[in-house]
Amino acid sequence: MKIYTVFVEPKTSGNIGFLARTMKNFGLKKLVLINPCKLENDAYYQAMHARELVQDAMIYDTLEEFIEDKKITSIVGTTGTAGGSYNIKRIPITPDELGKTMHVNGNIALLFGREGDGLNNQEIEQCDILVTIPTSDEYPIMNITHAAAIIFYEIFKNKKSYPIDDMDISSYDDKKVLTNLTNEIISKLDYPEHKEKQVKIIVKRIIGRAFIAGRESQTLRGTLKRINTRIKNKTHEE
Amino acid sequence: MKIYTVFVEPKTSGNIGFLARTMKNFGLKKLVLINPCKLENDAYYQAMHARELVQDAMIYDTLEEFIEDKKITSIVGTTGTAGGSYNIKRIPITPDELGKTMHVNGNIALLFGREGDGLNNQEIEQCDILVTIPTSDEYPIMNITHAAAIIFYEIFKNKKSYPIDDMDISSYDDKKVLTNLTNEIISKLDYPEHKEKQVKIIVKRIIGRAFIAGRESQTLRGTLKRINTRIKNKTHEE
Repeated sequence: MKIYTVFVEPKTSGNIGFLARTMKNFGLKKLVLINPCKLENDAYYQAMHARELVQDAMIYDTLEEFIEDKKITSIVGTTGTAGGSYNIKRIPITPDELGKTMHVNGNIALLFGREGDGLNNQEIEQCDILVTIPTSDEYPIMNITHAAAIIFYEIFKNKKSYPIDDMDISSYDDKKVLTNLTNEIISKLDYPEHKEKQVKIIVKRIIGRAFIAGRESQTLRGTLKRINTRIKNKTHEE
Repeated sequence: MKIYTVFVEPKTSGNIGFLARTMKNFGLKKLVLINPCKLENDAYYQAMHARELVQDAMIYDTLEEFIEDKKITSIVGTTGTAGGSYNIKRIPITPDELGKTMHVNGNIALLFGREGDGLNNQEIEQCDILVTIPTSDEYPIMNITHAAAIIFYEIFKNKKSYPIDDMDISSYDDKKVLTNLTNEIISKLDYPEHKEKQVKIIVKRIIGRAFIAGRESQTLRGTLKRINTRIKNKTHEE
């Protein structure tokens, strides 16, 4: 799969830089500019360590020339609020849904429209897929490069498929072991039956919620075993 | 749930504006600035239709003053790449995971660090939760407002899809009581000193991270007291 990030008629040179930086943050390399404004210094400045993406940007006069030249197989367009001025027949998907469907071969173009105006109706008509970011109704218009960051993030996220390698969150089985251990302890505390049940549920939920790491889980197991061994069982006493 | 977006020592006025705009895009309103640079015109310009967020920004000299003043119950920090310079003992979660756990009441602070340097170790130590955006290894350093957009998006996305339940989150003091109780128990387990310390740290962090509700905290207190009373103290045995 080749992904081209296409900025259609950018008006502000700095935004080209921001876009390049965000692309590189998520492993995207191919920047295409359609009829862009003049590239000033701030394009390179805002790109930071992604300035080579700006230097290597492919520039075309029209979208059609690019689509033909790079043999694009799928065009993904990004739009602002759904139900805006464009043809309502098109139902946009979310970035999340896009990320999950991007496991395809081919040459894919991700289109971002001009600042302020976005993509025009003709450009939107050419898109195979439209993506819209769910935003607050009160102020739905995002800055183009911030919108792009979210879309790149979702594509990257699904490509990597979680979790971050060195973050080994405890598994379902790990959690089960912890819950069994806490249940054993709670059973020794002579709660009335309904209360015992309630305590077990609460502790189970907290274990589920706490994002316990694999190595933390190891230590906790040891601690719970110690507690369990040490705890006096009232019935034995009497 | 009240969410405060806290920009710690911003250096560039325009970034405050970008942050405000992105906040409003995702329905966030409370902007806090800790010891910020001078707010120039570009803060208002980049905010676009969110300039009232910049106007109403709460400004504090130190993070501590803000935390105390607004009675913050949970602090969420954002950091760059996992395994970076900060203390490796802390395991960051993903924005996705953050969004899914944010169904709680309470006063939550979302911390974003200074451009370039991020949050310092002392600030990170204070966080109950750390979030890291999964990025390309080749260039993991994101612009701060683009990183913020992704985190706001994940919070908004999850808020929309699941109704926030009215769980009232336990306070800072509640958590302290729980930590004291667990510490008392752990002290009785005859761990070697360094191991005892480590176990206490792990348990404290899990309590911080788990978004324990007020009523859950009540029950847990009772359970921990029972365990503490019941536990055999080895020295007494011998």
